[in-house]
Amino acid sequence: MSRLLDAISSPADLKLLTDGELGILAEEIRQEIIRTTSKTGGHVAPSLGAVEIILAVHSLINAPEDRFVFDVGHQAYAHKLVTGRVDSFSTLRTYGGISGFPKPSESPYDVHPSGHASDSLSVVLGLAKARELRNSDEKIVALIGDAALSGGMAFEAINTIGQLQLPVVIILNDNEMSISRNVGALVRHLGAVRSSARYRQARDSSQEKLEESGPIGKAFVAFGRNAKDSLKQFLVPETMLFEQLGILCTPPINGHDIAEIKSHLRTALDADGPVLIHAVTRKGAGYPPAEEDPTRFHGVGPFDIETGKSTKKDRKPTYTDVFGKALIREAKADKRIVALTAGMRTGTGLEAFSLKLPDRFVDVGIAEENAVGTAVGMAIGGLKPVVAIYSTFLQRAFDQMVVDCALSESDVVFAIDRAGLVGDDGPTHHGVFDMAYCRMIPNMRIVAPSDEAELVCALHTALEVGGPFAIRYPRGAGAGAPVPKTPALLPVGVSSELRAGDDVALLAFGDRVPAALEAAELLAEKGIDARVVDMRWVKPLDEKAIAKAAETKVVLTVENGILSGGVGEAVLSVLNGIGANVPVRLLGVGDGFVGHGKTERLLSDLGLDAEGIVKAVIEVLL
Amino acid sequence: MSRLLDAISSPADLKLLTDGELGILAEEIRQEIIRTTSKTGGHVAPSLGAVEIILAVHSLINAPEDRFVFDVGHQAYAHKLVTGRVDSFSTLRTYGGISGFPKPSESPYDVHPSGHASDSLSVVLGLAKARELRNSDEKIVALIGDAALSGGMAFEAINTIGQLQLPVVIILNDNEMSISRNVGALVRHLGAVRSSARYRQARDSSQEKLEESGPIGKAFVAFGRNAKDSLKQFLVPETMLFEQLGILCTPPINGHDIAEIKSHLRTALDADGPVLIHAVTRKGAGYPPAEEDPTRFHGVGPFDIETGKSTKKDRKPTYTDVFGKALIREAKADKRIVALTAGMRTGTGLEAFSLKLPDRFVDVGIAEENAVGTAVGMAIGGLKPVVAIYSTFLQRAFDQMVVDCALSESDVVFAIDRAGLVGDDGPTHHGVFDMAYCRMIPNMRIVAPSDEAELVCALHTALEVGGPFAIRYPRGAGAGAPVPKTPALLPVGVSSELRAGDDVALLAFGDRVPAALEAAELLAEKGIDARVVDMRWVKPLDEKAIAKAAETKVVLTVENGILSGGVGEAVLSVLNGIGANVPVRLLGVGDGFVGHGKTERLLSDLGLDAEGIVKAVIEVLL
Repeated sequence: MSRLLDAISSPADLKLLTDGELGILAEEIRQEIIRTTSKTGGHVAPSLGAVEIILAVHSLINAPEDRFVFDVGHQAYAHKLVTGRVDSFSTLRTYGGISGFPKPSESPYDVHPSGHASDSLSVVLGLAKARELRNSDEKIVALIGDAALSGGMAFEAINTIGQLQLPVVIILNDNEMSISRNVGALVRHLGAVRSSARYRQARDSSQEKLEESGPIGKAFVAFGRNAKDSLKQFLVPETMLFEQLGILCTPPINGHDIAEIKSHLRTALDADGPVLIHAVTRKGAGYPPAEEDPTRFHGVGPFDIETGKSTKKDRKPTYTDVFGKALIREAKADKRIVALTAGMRTGTGLEAFSLKLPDRFVDVGIAEENAVGTAVGMAIGGLKPVVAIYSTFLQRAFDQMVVDCALSESDVVFAIDRAGLVGDDGPTHHGVFDMAYCRMIPNMRIVAPSDEAELVCALHTALEVGGPFAIRYPRGAGAGAPVPKTPALLPVGVSSELRAGDDVALLAFGDRVPAALEAAELLAEKGIDARVVDMRWVKPLDEKAIAKAAETKVVLTVENGILSGGVGEAVLSVLNGIGANVPVRLLGVGDGFVGHGKTERLLSDLGLDAEGIVKAVIEVLL
Repeated sequence: MSRLLDAISSPADLKLLTDGELGILAEEIRQEIIRTTSKTGGHVAPSLGAVEIILAVHSLINAPEDRFVFDVGHQAYAHKLVTGRVDSFSTLRTYGGISGFPKPSESPYDVHPSGHASDSLSVVLGLAKARELRNSDEKIVALIGDAALSGGMAFEAINTIGQLQLPVVIILNDNEMSISRNVGALVRHLGAVRSSARYRQARDSSQEKLEESGPIGKAFVAFGRNAKDSLKQFLVPETMLFEQLGILCTPPINGHDIAEIKSHLRTALDADGPVLIHAVTRKGAGYPPAEEDPTRFHGVGPFDIETGKSTKKDRKPTYTDVFGKALIREAKADKRIVALTAGMRTGTGLEAFSLKLPDRFVDVGIAEENAVGTAVGMAIGGLKPVVAIYSTFLQRAFDQMVVDCALSESDVVFAIDRAGLVGDDGPTHHGVFDMAYCRMIPNMRIVAPSDEAELVCALHTALEVGGPFAIRYPRGAGAGAPVPKTPALLPVGVSSELRAGDDVALLAFGDRVPAALEAAELLAEKGIDARVVDMRWVKPLDEKAIAKAAETKVVLTVENGILSGGVGEAVLSVLNGIGANVPVRLLGVGDGFVGHGKTERLLSDLGLDAEGIVKAVIEVLL
């Protein structure tokens, strides 16, 4: 069966389609997204929710000269499909294939490497200022979700866009999702706008006018040459929040009605200042399993199309699961313990905590800076906050970790999930910097558990020891070490020698410990006797174990993180301090961004798996 | 002459004073602030503007059980004076003396180590959540300036405070200052509130009522037991921005009228949800020179009380001055160059640029994340943005440097001012982390000029070479190296040997180069022949120069920055990579926060001056 989609080689082709045909195309795109992600996994629900918006935008602007910027970018699959990537779409998120996020090196239609929330408005602000100075007239459009608006960076940009009055179109993809999750007053404000009688009136009258006027959108433009004035007629007072910051707003419109979006967009693109189009969508729209469980389908592994069920068998508990359970246990024993997250309740394993101990759970939305600042306030107020955030997103709160937390020596536990390479999501999501950015912070303790049992003990230790305390653990499941009923207190700065050996010392951190053990077995086959140390503590380092390692013929450090400023260099510094004279090799992530693909494959490429470790040892020994 | 101030040993004493006496006390505090800062320097204008607010708060709450949190904290001098620090106030900002910012280790009345803007609302949010869980009833008050509200972190906290409806009082210290500076739509919104007819009406009627009702404040409380309802009567629609986020707001009140502040504060403290008191103040209030030039008196060195003029003679051009001039020269030669800053137009030396090339200058307010994101958008749009931000504040944009800038390899120049120790402002302001947090970022080039001439060449090089490019330079003046008329292109990754010598190699970075040269002279007197290398590039390192250094008897690296993850460790890693076998000593800032005091003194304490370098060399050689 021939598809419209196969005839779309660039967005220019969309201009030849009627709105009805665009609707058919939207359906084809949905099917393509569902089919591909059922095999590759991906951000299904967000991408299904944004199909019509993306088609409407690309049918009216002229990309890549006109700029279409995606916030976060996990909703951009339809954009990929209409910008020449139908054929490669089956490689989505696979090694060597196309990225799950906009990626400028992949396509000229991808403006900016998206991945972290709330940055799109700054980017369009910069683009608009550049346009002004270059005296050019390209259109600039951003697509941002309601959840991303809770990030302070988005507010900062709105503050400046409102001031400079640069003409940009901001499409707010309001998928109501966040409402049920209750993350912030702004989201509640948007909810009030949607449900207000005035909104319904405005909508009805808008609909009526559109129906009366024949060719869709004409009614809109007919209001006058000045787009600003015509838009003003559609203003609902409840959106005054943006209005007061100098951004004109439309009433909430149906984000799945291509004609409606286009009619508002056409007007907005002609405005001489910033305009926000408030598009209401359904996450997962058009695929019942995703509509029913948009949280799971936000980012999902391979699934059965018919049922929506995961096709992975016997899912082992992940580090995230283990952390979530352990925290509930700790919290039941100590009333002072509270949990915080930044828009990642499920992703960080805190769903059960939030249901069991709702009073002691705070989700601040996508607002890492506030999460850390709030945790510091809680600690000053006598609580024991545990902030669970992905490694890559915690980068947003680096300054708060330094100035608010470490300087005040506050009892805050940082549960750094997704530390190290994360696989399919690629460079914007790899958590490779945390050991380096945490290690430089005074008063900070950092532990990198090597299995699930050590994670549980690390959490217990962090809560007992106090002070700023970071625990970094990887994405996914470990080997499944049995979790102790009564977690042990880990002595601070003490490593654990897992295997004796005097030829080589493998000083391994976190999830690289099992690989080091495996390497030791392979080396034993070659007659090389390798000691394996689970270093456990990134800070303070076990200097005794390092000194002892210097007595072997070769010292190797193995970390799942960036080498520049990483813990390997810290080991080197200790060895230098004691005047050790032993060849040292640092294994870790080199000075570059790592692409996407299965984590095992990426680790292998970087020489961080057992084979890589063996190879490095032999190189040094020869 | 006896002063009321000398009788105030704790805030409890304020409760015994009438409003009239509090007014007299305010005047005494002003004189004390002016007298002390005329000798020590300090944040004169902000502190003079907040005297009445601080007295009003402390006369109504019971600190330290009740919590009074300062945003930024440079306005807290009056707070210090009424919390037992009259006697030590003359040591303000001096080595071993009291800090210029709230500092918990200095006083139980200082809740949190302030210094960076926009974090107070997160801290009060955390405190309020802790109060809820502890079932206690202490009052919680934050004082935040209008400029700090432009920081996204403040918005993030408002978003959550509005959602959770925790009773906290936020006093907005709106000093109109920012208005003339035009930094953001929010500030304009506040201006509109102030100037609106409704505000004036509300104010007049409020005044009238207060006058009618005898004992000040009674009228207010008399509105009803429910503080929320009584406050609602005072609402002005223009403050709907905060209202829509769930924060009740007062109309703008006179922030220098103690009685007026107290009357609103009393009501707000009784409210069962969050309340914002909109207090309008004058920066520098009560000291004519500061009122006339609040920008200079924001943070100022010693001055003559009579005239307000600086008592420092023959001020040498600072690195900041040299940068500002050089950027104008570059910008005149290349139309693509634009300058950005984050609320620090004067501090970063961009005042002249903003006047000469206003279209090519953007101040986004205290919003470092947006500054970097906007710069990336500009770069994608074909411009050459130069973002000038202090080292310590750029920490806020670490994630944007990684994901938005470095991953897209955007042509953004980071002019990192105040790099290294900054002196009197202390731990929240020292710029000791930048080499470490920049060095780990792939695609980033980092140069640390050793004098003014090299700064000018570095800027020229950054703009020519392109890509993410950081230039770090210290606070204050250098030796005054003559600036070249035609700046040279610095070869990337190439150091400069300033002094030959084969006993010791001193690999110095940035402002430590002159100290290393001085040390070499001192060592020569002892018969030790020291090579001095201006390493210049933090990344990429000059590996040839490092290999050559390994041929001497001792290698020392000298950096004005944190050792953990710093450039010394990078040198160590290079030496390790080539299998060098030479004693190496890393000089830099150890694993701890550095206090306040004159920079020279702090550098001496850390062994980073010439004597310290000499001492280290001799220790290693013996």
